[in-house]
Amino acid sequence: MYNVELEEALDIILRSIKKIEDTEEVRLENALGRILGEDFYAPMANPPFDRSPLDGFALRAKDTSRASKSNPITFTPIDKAYAGSPSTKSLGGFEAIRIMTGAKMPSGANCVIRLEDCIEVDNNIIIDKTLEAFENYCYKGEDIESGTLLLERGTKLSAIDLGVLGSMGQAKVRVIRRPKIGILVTGDEIVKHGLDLIDGKIYDTNGILLGSRIRELGFEYVKINTEKDDPKDVAYYIRENIENLDVLITTGGVSVGDKDIFHEVIEILDAKQLFWKVRMQPGTPAMYSILKDKPILSLSGNPFASLVTFELLARPLIGKISSDNSIATKKTKGIMMDDFNKKSKNRRFIRCIYGNGQVRLPEGGHSSGMLLSMTDCNALIDIEAGNTGLKKSDEVELLIL
Amino acid sequence: MYNVELEEALDIILRSIKKIEDTEEVRLENALGRILGEDFYAPMANPPFDRSPLDGFALRAKDTSRASKSNPITFTPIDKAYAGSPSTKSLGGFEAIRIMTGAKMPSGANCVIRLEDCIEVDNNIIIDKTLEAFENYCYKGEDIESGTLLLERGTKLSAIDLGVLGSMGQAKVRVIRRPKIGILVTGDEIVKHGLDLIDGKIYDTNGILLGSRIRELGFEYVKINTEKDDPKDVAYYIRENIENLDVLITTGGVSVGDKDIFHEVIEILDAKQLFWKVRMQPGTPAMYSILKDKPILSLSGNPFASLVTFELLARPLIGKISSDNSIATKKTKGIMMDDFNKKSKNRRFIRCIYGNGQVRLPEGGHSSGMLLSMTDCNALIDIEAGNTGLKKSDEVELLIL
Repeated sequence: MYNVELEEALDIILRSIKKIEDTEEVRLENALGRILGEDFYAPMANPPFDRSPLDGFALRAKDTSRASKSNPITFTPIDKAYAGSPSTKSLGGFEAIRIMTGAKMPSGANCVIRLEDCIEVDNNIIIDKTLEAFENYCYKGEDIESGTLLLERGTKLSAIDLGVLGSMGQAKVRVIRRPKIGILVTGDEIVKHGLDLIDGKIYDTNGILLGSRIRELGFEYVKINTEKDDPKDVAYYIRENIENLDVLITTGGVSVGDKDIFHEVIEILDAKQLFWKVRMQPGTPAMYSILKDKPILSLSGNPFASLVTFELLARPLIGKISSDNSIATKKTKGIMMDDFNKKSKNRRFIRCIYGNGQVRLPEGGHSSGMLLSMTDCNALIDIEAGNTGLKKSDEVELLIL
Repeated sequence: MYNVELEEALDIILRSIKKIEDTEEVRLENALGRILGEDFYAPMANPPFDRSPLDGFALRAKDTSRASKSNPITFTPIDKAYAGSPSTKSLGGFEAIRIMTGAKMPSGANCVIRLEDCIEVDNNIIIDKTLEAFENYCYKGEDIESGTLLLERGTKLSAIDLGVLGSMGQAKVRVIRRPKIGILVTGDEIVKHGLDLIDGKIYDTNGILLGSRIRELGFEYVKINTEKDDPKDVAYYIRENIENLDVLITTGGVSVGDKDIFHEVIEILDAKQLFWKVRMQPGTPAMYSILKDKPILSLSGNPFASLVTFELLARPLIGKISSDNSIATKKTKGIMMDDFNKKSKNRRFIRCIYGNGQVRLPEGGHSSGMLLSMTDCNALIDIEAGNTGLKKSDEVELLIL
């Protein structure tokens, strides 16, 4: 397909890929942000026993029923119960067991009086208020009943989820394998960081930009290096690496210039091109192909264009393949606080600063070669084809980065 | 100090610690989320030369001044300019140089006509429209002028920041050293994940909960293990490790029970206790001490309490020590969509689900021993001491997690 609408491109991408289904066990310490690979049912209750929520004395509520300031009641402490070291004694009438926060409730006791509310005299305690049955009393299973579905397959594991799994005694958790994402930067003009810049050449921006963006979304990537910017060479390195990848993102070489080698790379690889060119600016020449069932998303070499198409196309792709719903691009609306006096023949995405419903344009340029003014931006404005310019107080569609 | 207000506790903490000032050089690939350790000035212009923003022909604008549909003008292509391989020819009248996106502008040319707007006939091109000087022309330094302050010390490096540094040819960047954060979980009742649960004991929740929360905020932690839950033993392991840490967070042992060992631990260590007990629920018994200039924040062993006090006290502490302004707890207001029918003798923080200005309470309990209902929550409601209950449509103060 040629010259497709953005939604069409997205639809082609999402229909062409499958979610990764393989799972693996990882230690809880390494599971933050991973996608849970199975429904997790509580193997036990939490708390695992009735316990005290505070420091005090465990006793029978009915023994306090006549207690008051004018009629204090005396209780005899018979034991101590610690968190982790329960009392083995059974409590009788007007007896009390000193109990610490988190300790198991002793047999016979059905409430706890706060330490601050008791008066200790000699070896006894004096209580001058009534308690209700199960006052200051935590039930077994109050937080989690055994057998409850705690976390569903597909949950992105947060610190709290991991705390819950920890409270269930899990040392490991089964998660969905992470996608292996490759980045391949093409372009004769690209010079590696730290080397000298020859006339007419520029430093690699896309590799670090998109790679770091992938990390920002919580994934890892591998950089696929080629030796020279030649279709055969690039095709060779793609073929060598594609089997170990779930997604390959490339930049450069997709336009119409005669060094735009990606057309030839795709031919040499005998990959199936599903679309080329998307009706949007920047990033028009985006190309999408499948090689050995693996998606190859080829983006413009222009940094801002590669970033915009990464957000619009690669992010949903990675979101689906990884089953990570949290990384889907979020849409919202906002009110322009500035004018944007430029006609948009094609659908156009421009950078902006969004907050409290308000949309501001950054200082510095919007040209797609410019990256610096993007450092303050957190959203893109989606401007429809044929738009003659945006005015202050216009409502606009936004994509949150 | 004893029984301090939350703000007072926070003030004591922030006054007692210093920002880490040491810096280190890391590779760009490893710098995401790190704090820039020095002002970064552009060592070069970007683009580093005047260049073409599109594929077409470079020429002199004045040669097109009479061009129209009825008066097409013929140009003679004399060379090709590729991105990375500039043309070395100088362009004269009615000459054109085929130019690719990103290629250096040839000497003599001052505009570019799109390839689609030219008609190629034999070895010439025909142009039937006028171009302005510097039309489709990218200036050297258009994005970044050499010497500009690009990123200020203290910037938390985003993918875009790293793209900008990459475009400047940087292979490494100087960042502030990360704080080394230790977590030490105490409590006789705590059993490690994967082991059997003995009667009256519970699995470690706080270690994985707070550790993962530290990772969620973008930091690493080390777990400090002790051998037994004894003041001398705990003090020994703190003394052994404190020199290699910037912050130590402990949980458990801070209440008033006679196995609340932290009081004794602090004495054995001869640490300086700056406060004990904060006027809030949950998490009241939080304690804060300094040992060898290192902060030791000791939180309640109760998971929800430890989480709340982590958010309120540890997060600002880590934010200051690391110079990471982005992790400070954010405050906002919201409207209650549910009732909360409980009196709050003390200032109280309860979990809630916040979105679009609306505040909902989770299903399941609010008891501080409960963690599961926290999995859906993203904020805490700050309820003032003496509050008699919250009603639907009340405005409340919120802390975003």
